[in-house]
Amino acid sequence: MALPKSESQYAGHEVTSAASWMERREVVFPTVSRVAVCGGTHGNELSGVYLVRERLKKKKLTEEDDLVSVVTVMSNPRAVQQCRRYTETDLNRCFTRATLSCTVTDKTPYEIVRSQELNALLGPKGSPDAADLVCDLHNTTANMGLCFIAYSDCDWICLHIFRYLQRQMSNIPVRFIHFDLPLNEAYSLDSVGRHGFAMEIGPQAHGLVRSNILSAMQDGVQHMLDWVRLFNSGTQFEGGTVEIYTMVKNVHYPRDPETCGLSAAVHPHLQDRDFCLLRPGDPLFKTFSGETVNYKGTEPLYPFFINECAYYEKGVALSLARRRSIAIPSIRSERDRKPRRCMTAEETEEEDETEESEEANGLWNGE
Amino acid sequence: MALPKSESQYAGHEVTSAASWMERREVVFPTVSRVAVCGGTHGNELSGVYLVRERLKKKKLTEEDDLVSVVTVMSNPRAVQQCRRYTETDLNRCFTRATLSCTVTDKTPYEIVRSQELNALLGPKGSPDAADLVCDLHNTTANMGLCFIAYSDCDWICLHIFRYLQRQMSNIPVRFIHFDLPLNEAYSLDSVGRHGFAMEIGPQAHGLVRSNILSAMQDGVQHMLDWVRLFNSGTQFEGGTVEIYTMVKNVHYPRDPETCGLSAAVHPHLQDRDFCLLRPGDPLFKTFSGETVNYKGTEPLYPFFINECAYYEKGVALSLARRRSIAIPSIRSERDRKPRRCMTAEETEEEDETEESEEANGLWNGE
Repeated sequence: MALPKSESQYAGHEVTSAASWMERREVVFPTVSRVAVCGGTHGNELSGVYLVRERLKKKKLTEEDDLVSVVTVMSNPRAVQQCRRYTETDLNRCFTRATLSCTVTDKTPYEIVRSQELNALLGPKGSPDAADLVCDLHNTTANMGLCFIAYSDCDWICLHIFRYLQRQMSNIPVRFIHFDLPLNEAYSLDSVGRHGFAMEIGPQAHGLVRSNILSAMQDGVQHMLDWVRLFNSGTQFEGGTVEIYTMVKNVHYPRDPETCGLSAAVHPHLQDRDFCLLRPGDPLFKTFSGETVNYKGTEPLYPFFINECAYYEKGVALSLARRRSIAIPSIRSERDRKPRRCMTAEETEEEDETEESEEANGLWNGE
Repeated sequence: MALPKSESQYAGHEVTSAASWMERREVVFPTVSRVAVCGGTHGNELSGVYLVRERLKKKKLTEEDDLVSVVTVMSNPRAVQQCRRYTETDLNRCFTRATLSCTVTDKTPYEIVRSQELNALLGPKGSPDAADLVCDLHNTTANMGLCFIAYSDCDWICLHIFRYLQRQMSNIPVRFIHFDLPLNEAYSLDSVGRHGFAMEIGPQAHGLVRSNILSAMQDGVQHMLDWVRLFNSGTQFEGGTVEIYTMVKNVHYPRDPETCGLSAAVHPHLQDRDFCLLRPGDPLFKTFSGETVNYKGTEPLYPFFINECAYYEKGVALSLARRRSIAIPSIRSERDRKPRRCMTAEETEEEDETEESEEANGLWNGE
């Protein structure tokens, strides 16, 4: 089977290339030595904010170990302080190559400056010095359970971590959403790492914490780090098949032709039914005056981000995905290759030592 | 039975004062001729915002009738535009006598200026010129269903409307919350009317609309206006008993003694269980490190506004109430008294004719 076109970027090398079935292949990767856990990329998504704060509080007291080093980062401390998604522009759209390489002036929005700081800390994006794995924590108001969101459908590290969480977490559905974009155009913080994904959990209103959603995020992060530790210590993870959802398109709210304001809300039959197949003719919207608007597409697709609060500013009511089965190979780490040296906070610290910068720059700590 | 101490302020006069049972009394009130329906007092509580916009769009095309005149007002258009609770200070805390009578300067927060404009339009508070009934529309992230929130437990008009909605609306629980404050200290917009209440509906995250919550609000407003029309046309509403929840106290989040940040979220067993009796020893919080904090009070009380997003800034996790049964008399309107003349938009309009001011100043329209 031909190597998927973008697999090579993830630095694994094929061991049993003659095998006709992907699932019987074994791919060997370098260890995943440096992991970044980021929260507060959107300042009002509070599970990640509190998870990061708790980690920073505890990890100051612990020592590094040889299996993995974890940096914990508050990505957008100004937005966190204001409990807003962002202060000037959406930080999580600032990690394209173009934005990361633009010249900073006095008028550059805070979030663009911050994206370049984070790229210096966790990247540089696309370089061998980048963190091995960036996990960026998010919340959604949509009823999506726990979702991995990533740009590749052949990053075996991410897909194996995903399958591991799916098996370990019985009290929340775990799914994988794939945005098919090249690395240059990938715009979110997790794209800075050699491997990376957003861990998106909902439903939770922005600006508050629901204990069960925070617990799910804590469990998700813990299972991810457990997987990394197992992987780095030489455990082989068997190949198999996973289901993923590949983004197809956004669906916008209907608008009043006169005022341009929204004229409908997500239909009650669709609300909260993320990942339940939407068929042509199914109810999509209910207008404010009571009429039903049906889905006019010809292909049944899977809705997600249904009625996500943050997307009102773009007028996006939901997204639609195609479900696909992906064969993944067995993977293991190069046990004879030592983990890369761990970066320390002191090496990455450039700002003055305010509380904000301490949270914001995190600490590479052993788990 | 002695007349409750503050009943007289609501201008009804007792007809069968000799009756020993409140429920057998009949109280006659002037008609409820001028009703204000207000939304967007908090700019990110979107059911009220869209309900008001829809009403303004439709009512421009209709004529007044003799039974009731309704003014529809977008209370805080600037906050609505920014989709924020408020721009400088919480508008819905600005309707005390002190704030309404303070001198406005260039530095006065927008919301204080706006509260005085609204008081001029719908009040003056406490005067015979005030609107007969002010219904102010709100959303909460708490699982509270539809709640009336009012300052009196003996405003028979409000309590009868409440009971009417409770009977008419089968698909959402309808409750009455009583904040025991004198009129001078009553701080919310609805206190400007001769009768008034907030109609609070949830759960709905701020910054988005859930179709079922918007529908419940539309139904609630329609039933309220139906009641007013029945009342004004001479229908007698029988006395009886209603249950109300009288606010006792707020419960604050636990805080980290070092950082002063929150250290716990509402316990998963309590989350979404608004109006379910909380007993001494029941779980109240779960700390971010996993411990349970129990309710240490000695009296079983009813929680509400559990995990309301807007109260994080005050550190309030929930409120607790005592449930009480209230006897209400029969009421009817003075049929021989004509409805007061309807104020027109032109009489109340003082600002330039931008779209904002049109929404913000509303129209007294017949239903």
